[in-house]
Amino acid sequence: MPFAPLKNDTFLRACWRQSTDQTPVWLMRQAGRYLPEYVATRAKAGSFMGLATNVDYATEVTLQPLARYPLDAAILFSDILTVPDAMGLGLSFEAGEGPRFARPVRDEAAIRALRVPDLERLRYVFDAVASIRRALDGRVPLIGFSGSPWTLACYMVEGAGSSDYRLVKTLLYSRPDLMHHLLAVNADAVAAYLNAQIDAGAQAVMVFDSWGGVLADGAFQDFSLAYTARVLQQLKREGVDGQPVPRIVFTKGGGLWLEDMRGLDCEVLGLDWTVDLARARALVGEGPGAKALQGNIDPNVLFAPPAQIEAEVDKVLNAFGRPHTDPSAAGPTHIFNLGHGISQFTPPEHVAALVAAVHARSRALRGN
Amino acid sequence: MPFAPLKNDTFLRACWRQSTDQTPVWLMRQAGRYLPEYVATRAKAGSFMGLATNVDYATEVTLQPLARYPLDAAILFSDILTVPDAMGLGLSFEAGEGPRFARPVRDEAAIRALRVPDLERLRYVFDAVASIRRALDGRVPLIGFSGSPWTLACYMVEGAGSSDYRLVKTLLYSRPDLMHHLLAVNADAVAAYLNAQIDAGAQAVMVFDSWGGVLADGAFQDFSLAYTARVLQQLKREGVDGQPVPRIVFTKGGGLWLEDMRGLDCEVLGLDWTVDLARARALVGEGPGAKALQGNIDPNVLFAPPAQIEAEVDKVLNAFGRPHTDPSAAGPTHIFNLGHGISQFTPPEHVAALVAAVHARSRALRGN
Repeated sequence: MPFAPLKNDTFLRACWRQSTDQTPVWLMRQAGRYLPEYVATRAKAGSFMGLATNVDYATEVTLQPLARYPLDAAILFSDILTVPDAMGLGLSFEAGEGPRFARPVRDEAAIRALRVPDLERLRYVFDAVASIRRALDGRVPLIGFSGSPWTLACYMVEGAGSSDYRLVKTLLYSRPDLMHHLLAVNADAVAAYLNAQIDAGAQAVMVFDSWGGVLADGAFQDFSLAYTARVLQQLKREGVDGQPVPRIVFTKGGGLWLEDMRGLDCEVLGLDWTVDLARARALVGEGPGAKALQGNIDPNVLFAPPAQIEAEVDKVLNAFGRPHTDPSAAGPTHIFNLGHGISQFTPPEHVAALVAAVHARSRALRGN
Repeated sequence: MPFAPLKNDTFLRACWRQSTDQTPVWLMRQAGRYLPEYVATRAKAGSFMGLATNVDYATEVTLQPLARYPLDAAILFSDILTVPDAMGLGLSFEAGEGPRFARPVRDEAAIRALRVPDLERLRYVFDAVASIRRALDGRVPLIGFSGSPWTLACYMVEGAGSSDYRLVKTLLYSRPDLMHHLLAVNADAVAAYLNAQIDAGAQAVMVFDSWGGVLADGAFQDFSLAYTARVLQQLKREGVDGQPVPRIVFTKGGGLWLEDMRGLDCEVLGLDWTVDLARARALVGEGPGAKALQGNIDPNVLFAPPAQIEAEVDKVLNAFGRPHTDPSAAGPTHIFNLGHGISQFTPPEHVAALVAAVHARSRALRGN
């Protein structure tokens, strides 16, 4: 049974650097704890993984923010660490803490034993993608995602979040050969995982390099960027319905390496709030190999009153400047987003103010 | 009684962009928990603040790393948060945790009540500076320091370290007027504090903007850089012995804003490991308003074996390239350091390998 035709293609058009009447907007972690309806569903599911592995619950929470706000894209509800979990590392989420692996990978034997996992172990993700896509009924496109090879490696070696990345960097600096092996396995696993999401119905895919920015200059290019490129190289270009699937790469803290990222074979670069969008547009938003830009307001802006939120939205839109408006050509485009995931403490009504401001002000910016 | 004449001026010469035979090296947090002799002294002192407020202990630990390694500078043993402590916020260090303020500053009344503290409350710092300077006996220069106005504000509002800076950024975005007031008081307090360190014998001063990098583009310039500039503007240019006192500014995560920092009235910019030293040298190391550059190896390199440490030292030295060698003129210079404080888990013998490699390889780089 084919999926319903897409009614709002603003996000996909912007990914392809095509003109749009307004700037599309979605929010990283838009289905999350700041929404009381999410908290209620999670309580029913019992745990984060109980939520992520249940197709009905995952579908329900993915659609929750769309019921509140006129967002221009949906993103699969899942976690960036499902792939190493399927490799056998044992993912769990303690209440009030981040993710944790029961069996971190810290010695040569453990690293050499790693394999691209049997994708059947991730069937729950692909089932969720298909279910969400049906439930969306063509309202907005669905984004699939994964952690980047390096970001997965950080958690796989550290076993949890880290303030100094001591264990994973000790491995990197002491045994670069082992680190390259680990990253190669991760890259091939991430590529297979994203391809299966595309086959299940994902209309765009995003690689979250959440910890690329902790690497030294030089190490970033060798140990993160090169393996993101290895993922991109293997990705399917066409979705299950024959439409092209744009690819987004987001390196938190990667603003210094935009010129290196220009060479990536992807359509969109995500940016955090430290980056000046005017500068990013000049560096990678135009000319050969140009990318659409996604981001980049500080999520903490959402704690200010609506009037200040609107002023900060204006700053971000104005920093990017007027997107191109020529319907017959590709040119600079901007997808509005946060520079990082939304905080669980965000007042939901402030999100409404942000989304409304992006649409209204970005129409005005185009003279619409 | 005048202080002893300086025997090793390599660090100060490099600060002033004068040629040196080898690249000077010191390490942020070089007197710290990775040294067993430090742990022993701290045990005698009972607590971190017990250590920092006792002149004899502070002198003892400051000199400990110099007894082990041929470092080219000493840095006052203290904490970046002494100034807000003197403002009455009640600083303490829990075992195994970071700093904590008993009375964080979170509302208008508390912010309006803040004053530049009576410097007599910081007498223990100035006494330590004088004592350390005497104990150094001219061996290497002594660096004094403070946290930047913004970095102090982060701790003053959050009350402790933070993963998201939600409280301080909520204040910044909701009540920028109050944040500016807080930062102005901090800037004037930091300037007075550093001037008193200079009067007590500090031969260089450093402003640690440890949390500047968490700010959004635009906010960094308005809420961090502007107040660092306000500090620099008020600093004494001449030390107690009539020598000029160079000023170092280090913004962790500030690599994107180097061109903005070029305008600072200081001599040296500190850089973390995300920055390519070749690029930094091209941007701010030469021409009018040029700065000496300090940094920037990843402290985690010190967990690798000595051969890898030497290879990584080479990468950093080579990225900067050959410093100028013209004794009659100013030109590009590099002060070797870590890109952040040394980890408590560092093997002390690895530090010896790093320091030796910097000196040997940097002499070779100059053809010496």
